[in-house]
Amino acid sequence: MATLQDIGVSALINILTAFAFLLAFAILRIQPVNDRVYFPKWYSTGDRKSPRRSGNFVGKFVNLNITTYFTFLNWMPQALKMSESEIIDHAGLDSAVFLRIYTLGLKIFIPITIVALFILIPVNVSDGTLSFLKKDLVMSDIDKLSISNVRPNSSRFFIHIGLEYVFTIWVCFMLYKEYDNIASMRLRYLASQGRRVDQFTVVVRNIPHSSGKSVSDSVDHFFKTNHPDHYLCHQAVYDANRFAKLVRQRERLQNWLDYYQLKFERHPEKRPTCKRGFLGLCGIRVDSIEYYKQLIQNLDRRMSLEREKVINGHESILPVAFVSFNSRWGAAVCAQTQQSKNPTLWLTNWAPEPRDVYWSNLAIPFVSLTIRKLVISLSVFALVFFYMIPIAFVQSLANLEGLERVAPFLRSVIELKFIKSFLQGFLPGLALKIFLYILPTVLMIMSKIEGYISMSVLERKAAAKYYYFMLVNVFLGSIIAGTAFEQLNSFLHQSATEIPRTIGVSIPMKATFFITYIMVDGWAGIAGEILRLKSLVIYHLKNMFLVKTERDREKAMDPGSVDYPETLPSLQLYFLLGIVYAVVTPILLPFILVFFAFAYLVYRHQVINVYNQQYESVAAFWPHVHSRIIASLLISQLLLLGLLSTKKAANSTPLLVALPILTLAFHKYCKNRFEPAFRKYPLEEAMAKDLTEQAVEPNLNLKSYLGDAYLHPIFHSFEEAEEELVQVQVRVDKHQAHHSDHASPSDSGSEISSPSPSHNVPASQYQVEHNYEHNYNYQYESEHRTYYSYHYEGQP
Amino acid sequence: MATLQDIGVSALINILTAFAFLLAFAILRIQPVNDRVYFPKWYSTGDRKSPRRSGNFVGKFVNLNITTYFTFLNWMPQALKMSESEIIDHAGLDSAVFLRIYTLGLKIFIPITIVALFILIPVNVSDGTLSFLKKDLVMSDIDKLSISNVRPNSSRFFIHIGLEYVFTIWVCFMLYKEYDNIASMRLRYLASQGRRVDQFTVVVRNIPHSSGKSVSDSVDHFFKTNHPDHYLCHQAVYDANRFAKLVRQRERLQNWLDYYQLKFERHPEKRPTCKRGFLGLCGIRVDSIEYYKQLIQNLDRRMSLEREKVINGHESILPVAFVSFNSRWGAAVCAQTQQSKNPTLWLTNWAPEPRDVYWSNLAIPFVSLTIRKLVISLSVFALVFFYMIPIAFVQSLANLEGLERVAPFLRSVIELKFIKSFLQGFLPGLALKIFLYILPTVLMIMSKIEGYISMSVLERKAAAKYYYFMLVNVFLGSIIAGTAFEQLNSFLHQSATEIPRTIGVSIPMKATFFITYIMVDGWAGIAGEILRLKSLVIYHLKNMFLVKTERDREKAMDPGSVDYPETLPSLQLYFLLGIVYAVVTPILLPFILVFFAFAYLVYRHQVINVYNQQYESVAAFWPHVHSRIIASLLISQLLLLGLLSTKKAANSTPLLVALPILTLAFHKYCKNRFEPAFRKYPLEEAMAKDLTEQAVEPNLNLKSYLGDAYLHPIFHSFEEAEEELVQVQVRVDKHQAHHSDHASPSDSGSEISSPSPSHNVPASQYQVEHNYEHNYNYQYESEHRTYYSYHYEGQP
Repeated sequence: MATLQDIGVSALINILTAFAFLLAFAILRIQPVNDRVYFPKWYSTGDRKSPRRSGNFVGKFVNLNITTYFTFLNWMPQALKMSESEIIDHAGLDSAVFLRIYTLGLKIFIPITIVALFILIPVNVSDGTLSFLKKDLVMSDIDKLSISNVRPNSSRFFIHIGLEYVFTIWVCFMLYKEYDNIASMRLRYLASQGRRVDQFTVVVRNIPHSSGKSVSDSVDHFFKTNHPDHYLCHQAVYDANRFAKLVRQRERLQNWLDYYQLKFERHPEKRPTCKRGFLGLCGIRVDSIEYYKQLIQNLDRRMSLEREKVINGHESILPVAFVSFNSRWGAAVCAQTQQSKNPTLWLTNWAPEPRDVYWSNLAIPFVSLTIRKLVISLSVFALVFFYMIPIAFVQSLANLEGLERVAPFLRSVIELKFIKSFLQGFLPGLALKIFLYILPTVLMIMSKIEGYISMSVLERKAAAKYYYFMLVNVFLGSIIAGTAFEQLNSFLHQSATEIPRTIGVSIPMKATFFITYIMVDGWAGIAGEILRLKSLVIYHLKNMFLVKTERDREKAMDPGSVDYPETLPSLQLYFLLGIVYAVVTPILLPFILVFFAFAYLVYRHQVINVYNQQYESVAAFWPHVHSRIIASLLISQLLLLGLLSTKKAANSTPLLVALPILTLAFHKYCKNRFEPAFRKYPLEEAMAKDLTEQAVEPNLNLKSYLGDAYLHPIFHSFEEAEEELVQVQVRVDKHQAHHSDHASPSDSGSEISSPSPSHNVPASQYQVEHNYEHNYNYQYESEHRTYYSYHYEGQP
Repeated sequence: MATLQDIGVSALINILTAFAFLLAFAILRIQPVNDRVYFPKWYSTGDRKSPRRSGNFVGKFVNLNITTYFTFLNWMPQALKMSESEIIDHAGLDSAVFLRIYTLGLKIFIPITIVALFILIPVNVSDGTLSFLKKDLVMSDIDKLSISNVRPNSSRFFIHIGLEYVFTIWVCFMLYKEYDNIASMRLRYLASQGRRVDQFTVVVRNIPHSSGKSVSDSVDHFFKTNHPDHYLCHQAVYDANRFAKLVRQRERLQNWLDYYQLKFERHPEKRPTCKRGFLGLCGIRVDSIEYYKQLIQNLDRRMSLEREKVINGHESILPVAFVSFNSRWGAAVCAQTQQSKNPTLWLTNWAPEPRDVYWSNLAIPFVSLTIRKLVISLSVFALVFFYMIPIAFVQSLANLEGLERVAPFLRSVIELKFIKSFLQGFLPGLALKIFLYILPTVLMIMSKIEGYISMSVLERKAAAKYYYFMLVNVFLGSIIAGTAFEQLNSFLHQSATEIPRTIGVSIPMKATFFITYIMVDGWAGIAGEILRLKSLVIYHLKNMFLVKTERDREKAMDPGSVDYPETLPSLQLYFLLGIVYAVVTPILLPFILVFFAFAYLVYRHQVINVYNQQYESVAAFWPHVHSRIIASLLISQLLLLGLLSTKKAANSTPLLVALPILTLAFHKYCKNRFEPAFRKYPLEEAMAKDLTEQAVEPNLNLKSYLGDAYLHPIFHSFEEAEEELVQVQVRVDKHQAHHSDHASPSDSGSEISSPSPSHNVPASQYQVEHNYEHNYNYQYESEHRTYYSYHYEGQP
């Protein structure tokens, strides 16, 4: 049990760590050589082409302007400068709403902290049960400020109960306002968006197989019959597995070609050669460059054939299609209604943005989906409650004896006392560390198996799984000692009224632990986030060994996006801690406030300068955030009930029973009131946009606009790669010209919306109007094209 | 604890009771005087005008044909004669599907019974733990046939677990087949139906108030904007409270007029007179008939004015409207999509049939609905768990001492020993009896407060509440002694694993109780159902004192409809008992089989000959039946788990854990696969019907067809009452002519569907195409019109 002093020391250490990180960040970020690591967003929007640099050679890498070192915290006011609407334009609504979660945290907890500190701490301290107890009892100073200090059966508990009511009402009020706000922000954003293919498109799954008819024919027939006035066209989805294999093969060959070309470039006196046989070990020796060029040409021919076969052949069409309508109204109607008598066929849903589609999951049949959901739910349950079992098993293997047996030559090293003790402390934790490190990936894979068809939904589902894991293993796991499995076992053998009591009792005792947790994970962790150490190291490593051109340098820096599957759940954990401890140990609240304020600054900076979102879900994650804060309220109420019932506050406890019911009713009301805005698309809205568009562009050719927006990106990439051989020169010029076109931050605003023309987008982030304006198109470059072209440029 | 012999005696008594009822029924039903009680359905369809009677005067009342008495059970084969499709034509799909529940029971339980009896009973008997125990232990013979007889830790439990799997799979298989069947029956029925107003109509609630615009204008504007190609017209809903008051007043006056006319008719020598003043006690004496005719005329004038004011005035229009579209497709689209940005405004739903609308609930605003649902959920919870508290309170008052204090003159009677003991046994139960008798009414009122807008939904919700009550108070309440409140209390203090164990242990012991319950409630109760004693008595009483004309006689017999709110929950209780005891005490199964078979016969007879459904929900209750049978499966699995864990069958019990999970997955699959067929209307279907109709009737004037179908029935009634004074003679002739038109049982089939022209429909069952074909219309008579007109006919 920590005393106040211990906490002070811990706070000092963490504050110093955080400051060290911040200082490092402040110094590193103003070095021109790191500019791409700390400001990639500006490069991707095209606002910045090269780092600000001083004149001379050293100034290219190191900042020599001394004055900038003294204003090392000036990123903070800079981060606050941008207004919310500017952030929406700059980084999308998702990022803006993500930041609003932090301000919501501040708005909720600042008044709660003030009230709790000024009312509860005097109430708790003055009763002083604990001071009557012997000094040597295991009680910390923190406990004197908490509800533990109040005498059992005291009438002071009425104050705690009253405040729980006040806090709940306050939180609900803020949540309501915020939900209302974000719902209207979402609608405004949707209304202000320009024309987008996904507004007209619906994804249709489980198209039934009718004999003698191709999938395309039956889609055409079905929608011409049932949506005669609105159906426009559809795009089939192809099974591109074989083609993808060829693409991978071509990439490998291209790498070899690049390698030999680079070799030749460095030593122009000697043309590189290689053997044609198995693994280049036997066979005739040939000129490598010519040989690989030949191979690639052959492969390109095969790929063309395969591509033709896939796109024109009927057997590779999956029973899925993207069906487009001639109006948003038609698409909204189709997405929201049941099409066929058999509700497992012709399932319609809004199509995700093209760059948001997760292609592999499109063709999962209905029965398989049901089974997958069941299996994954069971696996998540098992993972949350039994994850310690395999880890303990691995730990039992990975001890020093095991290591010595496997690698006897290490024995002399291991036997050194210093190293031995280090390893003994380190090895058992290693398995756990590795597990926790790969956990988000595992959860994402699980979500993928579950069969969601868009990246945004996948991330939300992974976040939900991570939240359950955190709730059980971090929150409950810290309160009740023992693994989650032991908890589960003990809960199963306890009565429904006993469980909140068991947890409630230990809650005040764990306050010091959670304060430390907030400082380590929240304060220092967030400071680490802004430093981007991993990205920094990777970027410089790549820069040293791989980068040959300016474009490679851009590619070397992946700005990434806000990592929702990890960030949202931990954020929700802080809400939970704050709400649970508000009444129990209010001294914890200031630490949470500092976290929210600091994290808000850091993420604001990151959103403005670093992250580049892969997709725009228009705040679709908000209902989850809302309902988890409500869940936190419910948990806090139940635990307080349990805690009070152990305090023999029998006459005051029943007053609390109404609170969870009211909270649930509030939640239900909010769900009905606001959630449809996040799940459905009102016809009023659709019609209004249709009418506006008709007035502005009466002669729009929508069919050509939609084009093959929903063609699997792999086909796009190949198409471009072919064109490229001819157009290298032309394109480079165009490219220079286009960058300036794209400097305006209003890019995602009112004009034809398309993925921001970043140069390091992954393969899925392709152009959406490829066939619409073929020339204009060249500004959006695919990864492959970029990759190939600049190697050619690199040649003399 | 009952022995096998006790059960035999009880069975004999109940079989005799049932036979006595059947005999009474057989004798009563062939008396011409009871014909209207036992065959009202045929009267309401118009197939029968007067009882079959022998020639002479006595034969008018008593059946003198001796031979018919010997074939007294011939109603059974008769009931089976009609095929299912004939039943659908005759009584609607609801009734046909209701009967299918009984056949489903038979299909499920016949194989289960055979397997259980032939496998489990030998397994249970031969292990014989109980025979080793002392004879005087409280154990019945029944227990020797049950799982209690198996030694703890026996490997025989694998057989029980295996059979639980087999039974679950069998039940799920039958449920799947049945759901599939009923879903396609429903779709076929919907497809075969003719044009109906509700196919084109959507009810829109929560129409926002916009200043300067009437509700009608804003509805028109909204739907003309957002459904420009499909919107046809709308009907406003009027606040008819004041008008309804006038209607009630007129009815009272009419009653007085009738009374005096009857008086005058019987004593033509003396015209009745009355005083005009307060309560007829003072004032001038006037001629009663003239006076009341005058009053009615005045009132009629006031009603006309009020009616004009209501229908033309804007302030009496509620923010609800029935919006009609020019195609089923348009209506299906509107019903299934979100209209407005604010999801609590412009709420659209399929309109119920006009006769199914529950008018009073139409105008409840959204917030109020949320609150009502919360309050009613809490009340239902309280009612289910705490209903004993007020009853115990009433009981404590209603004892003999209390009675003597209130009515001292009864003391001498009460003090008689025989009467005293009778009252002491009777009084405490009286409050409970009264409570149980009014319970369905209370639950229905609760559902009405919850705010559902159609009678069919109200009945389903009341049935759900009744099911919870039965589950907790009959099933659990019988297994665990003590009130539901005590159960709740003990459950709250038991762990999650302890609860199924507590219940599981007592399950085999309660088998005899449930066998008796099945015989009393199931066998004798159903035989009582066919006897219709209450209806019989009421009918004859009315006949004696009230009936003046043939039409009054028809009105005196209300055939009623299948009482879903009571019948469905008790049916589901039998499924629960059968499924729970299939593995535990299989000897209970034959009793359930007898119940299902017998109840099937009885209800088939009743549906064919007696009941006259008020509305047609097209089997909308099936998903509830399905999910409650699934719930029964889950309950049985959990209880078996609990039971086995007390039998120390530790090595076999874990095998059972997978079963509930699989059952839940099956349920989820069924829900996704079939439930949309009951909740939504596929566009494919709508479009197909639209196209067919267009081909058949290209020049249909839909607007005039829809007319004022959704006008509050009270306005219809008044309109008709006015017309009537002129048209009495005409109509009577027409009426005779129309009856023969309507004899064909295919009436509800392919032609314009409308409520069957029954003469004793309640006020809500009004004509649906009133303004469409004004002449044809007179075959559908309203209650009021009927009532008024035949009194006039009764005059000389």
